[in-house]
Amino acid sequence: MNFIGIDLGATEIKAGIVSKDGKIIDKTAIHTPIDGAVGAVVDSIDMLTARFLKTDNDTIQSVKGIGIGIPGVCNDEGLVYYAPNLFWNNVPLGDLLRKKTNIPVFIENDATMAVVGEAKCSVAKGISNCVLITLGTGIGSGIIINGDVYKGNHGIGAEIGHMIVGENFYNCNCGNNGCLETFSSATALVKYTEKLLSDSGNSLISEKLLSDSGNSSISRKLPSNSSNSFVSGKLLSDSCSSLISEKIDNDMERLDAKLIFDCAKKGDFVANKAVDRLVKYLAIGIGNIINILDPEMVIIGGGISKAGDYLIDKLKKEVPKNIWLKSMNFTEIVLAGLGNDAGIIGGAMYAESKLSL
Amino acid sequence: MNFIGIDLGATEIKAGIVSKDGKIIDKTAIHTPIDGAVGAVVDSIDMLTARFLKTDNDTIQSVKGIGIGIPGVCNDEGLVYYAPNLFWNNVPLGDLLRKKTNIPVFIENDATMAVVGEAKCSVAKGISNCVLITLGTGIGSGIIINGDVYKGNHGIGAEIGHMIVGENFYNCNCGNNGCLETFSSATALVKYTEKLLSDSGNSLISEKLLSDSGNSSISRKLPSNSSNSFVSGKLLSDSCSSLISEKIDNDMERLDAKLIFDCAKKGDFVANKAVDRLVKYLAIGIGNIINILDPEMVIIGGGISKAGDYLIDKLKKEVPKNIWLKSMNFTEIVLAGLGNDAGIIGGAMYAESKLSL
Repeated sequence: MNFIGIDLGATEIKAGIVSKDGKIIDKTAIHTPIDGAVGAVVDSIDMLTARFLKTDNDTIQSVKGIGIGIPGVCNDEGLVYYAPNLFWNNVPLGDLLRKKTNIPVFIENDATMAVVGEAKCSVAKGISNCVLITLGTGIGSGIIINGDVYKGNHGIGAEIGHMIVGENFYNCNCGNNGCLETFSSATALVKYTEKLLSDSGNSLISEKLLSDSGNSSISRKLPSNSSNSFVSGKLLSDSCSSLISEKIDNDMERLDAKLIFDCAKKGDFVANKAVDRLVKYLAIGIGNIINILDPEMVIIGGGISKAGDYLIDKLKKEVPKNIWLKSMNFTEIVLAGLGNDAGIIGGAMYAESKLSL
Repeated sequence: MNFIGIDLGATEIKAGIVSKDGKIIDKTAIHTPIDGAVGAVVDSIDMLTARFLKTDNDTIQSVKGIGIGIPGVCNDEGLVYYAPNLFWNNVPLGDLLRKKTNIPVFIENDATMAVVGEAKCSVAKGISNCVLITLGTGIGSGIIINGDVYKGNHGIGAEIGHMIVGENFYNCNCGNNGCLETFSSATALVKYTEKLLSDSGNSLISEKLLSDSGNSSISRKLPSNSSNSFVSGKLLSDSCSSLISEKIDNDMERLDAKLIFDCAKKGDFVANKAVDRLVKYLAIGIGNIINILDPEMVIIGGGISKAGDYLIDKLKKEVPKNIWLKSMNFTEIVLAGLGNDAGIIGGAMYAESKLSL
C-alpha cells in the first residue's frame, strides 16, 4: 500500500511515491508553472501523479491516496484561502484535483505536512506533542497535539512565524511589525546583515574595537571624521567584516544566509552579530511556544537548519532564558530529520493517516 | 449527582457544591491558613469538603468528586510542582487529600479550572477550542483544545502570561523580561502608572500639551526650568493627571487598577496612557494566540475584566492589528461569564468531566 506525496512550492513541485512506512520508492520534481495560473498547476500535479500511477502496474493498484503540501492555508476540503507566493486567494485546489483523479486527495499547509513526516517517520516518531519550525525565506510551522495535526478552528493557526516578539526596523509581508519571521528567517538574516554592513559603520567599529580590546578607552581613538559614511564604510569593511565583504566582493546581491552562517562560524564579527540576533528572537519564539504549548519536542527545519548543531547548540543555550519555569526545562530542541524530502514524505503520511481514520 | 469545586487562592479558599449542570447549590469561603503550611491547607480543604458532605444526608450520597484549582502547576495526580504565592514546591496535594477522603479528587491550575467552567456552563458552552486569560495580580490562562483541557506535555503549558511580547522596564517574577504579565496584569498597570506619575514629568507634560493643542510648536512654551523634578511633578499633577492624583490624594499606596480604569473612562490623560499600553501588549498576546492556536473564542476574566465592554471594545479594535491574515479575523473576544464563581464551578465541572471519561 503506497501513497503519493506532493510538495507544491512557488518555484518547484516535488512529488514522490512513498510506502506505508514512509520510504520513498521514486521521486521527481518539475518547475512550478511560472505564471502561477491555477489550471497549469493542477495539470502539473495531475501529470506527476499519473507518472507514478503509470510506471508500474502493481503501483497503480496500490496507491491509496495523495497528500499535497501547499505554501499557504486551506480548509479540510482543500480550499486554499491564501497562498501569497502563488498569488492564490480562495482557490478550490481540492475540488479541481478531485475532478482529475479517482484517488482521495488531501491538502494541507506545507510545514504541517513536514511535521507529520517527522512525527510519523523521523525524529519525532512516537511523540504526541511537537512543533516544527521551518526557517527559510519565511518561517512556517506545523503543530501536532495529542498525536493529531492542529491548525486551529478556522485553519489559520500554527503560524508561529507571525508571532510578534519585538519591534523591528522593517514590516513583515503580512503588514505587521515584529513578526518572528522578520527576525529569524533567512530573509531577515540577510536584511539585518545588509543593514549592519551599510548603515551602522561608526557604532559597529566602536563596538568591534571594544570587543577586541576589552578596553573602553579605545573608542576614543576613532578618527574624528568617522561620521563620513564613505570613511566609516571603508573602515568597516577593513576592520569589522572583511570576511563577508571578501566573500561577496562587496556585491550585496551575493549575500545569503549560508554565507553569513559560514562567516559566523569562522568568527566574523558582523556575521556573529547577525546570527546572534536571529538566535535571540528565535529563542524568544521557542520559549513562548514552550510556555504556551509545552511540547515534548521542537524541531528546526528549513534552509537555516543546515547550520546544524552550530544553530541547535546556540538555541539550547538561549531558549532556557525565556522559559518561565526554569527548573522544568524539558522540551527537546532538535534538527529536522527528513531534509528536502520532508514535504513528499509528510504529504504521503498525511494521506495515510487521513485514510486510516 | 453533585460535585465539590474548590478554588485555592493565596488569601482565600472558596468552596461550593455544584450540580451536574453547573449550578451552585451552596458555597462558602475561608481565609487560607496564613503561614501557607501544607498540612493546614489540607485540613482546611478537608473541613470545607466535610461541611458539604454533612449538611444534608442526600448530599453525602450524591457528591461524586472534588475538583481543586490551585494557583500553580501540577501533574494529573495532583503533585503541585510550583505554586509561588503559596510558597509550594513539589507538594503532593492530591495524595494528602486522598488520605483524608474517599471521594475522587482532581487537581488542576486555577485558570484551567476557570476555562472548564466557561466551556461547560457559560460563555464558551459548546465551543471546542478556546483560551481564557485571567488578568489579575498576575496573568493566568487556560486552554481547551478539541474539547479537552490542554496543559502541555509536562503540565507547564498554558502560561500565556509568560509569553514574551516586548521589552519592559522591570523584570517578571519568573526572572525573565518582557512577559505579558509585566505589561497587562493589574500589577503591571499600577507599576506603569506609578512610573508615569513619578518619573516622566517633562516628556509627559509636552505630550499632554501637544495632544490637547494638536500644535507641535506648543512644546516650546514649556518653562525653561521644567527639568527640575519638583516643578515638573507639580505641573504634572496640575495639568496631566489631576484626577488620579486627586483620587489617591498623592498616596501611591492607594493606586489600584480599578481606580486607573475609572480615571481612564473619565478621560484622564495619564490613566488613558497606562490603559492603552496594557491594551497594546494584551492585543499582541491575544494576536499571537490567534496566529498560533486560532481558537474560536478568547475569554477575558480576572479583576481587570471588570472594566467590562470598555476593555473588550478596545481589544476588538487593537487585536486585529496583530493577526497575520486580516481577512480571517474570526476569533471572538468576550468577557468571562462566571465571575468570582468561576473557580468553584470550573473545579466541580472538571471533576465531573474526569469522572465521565
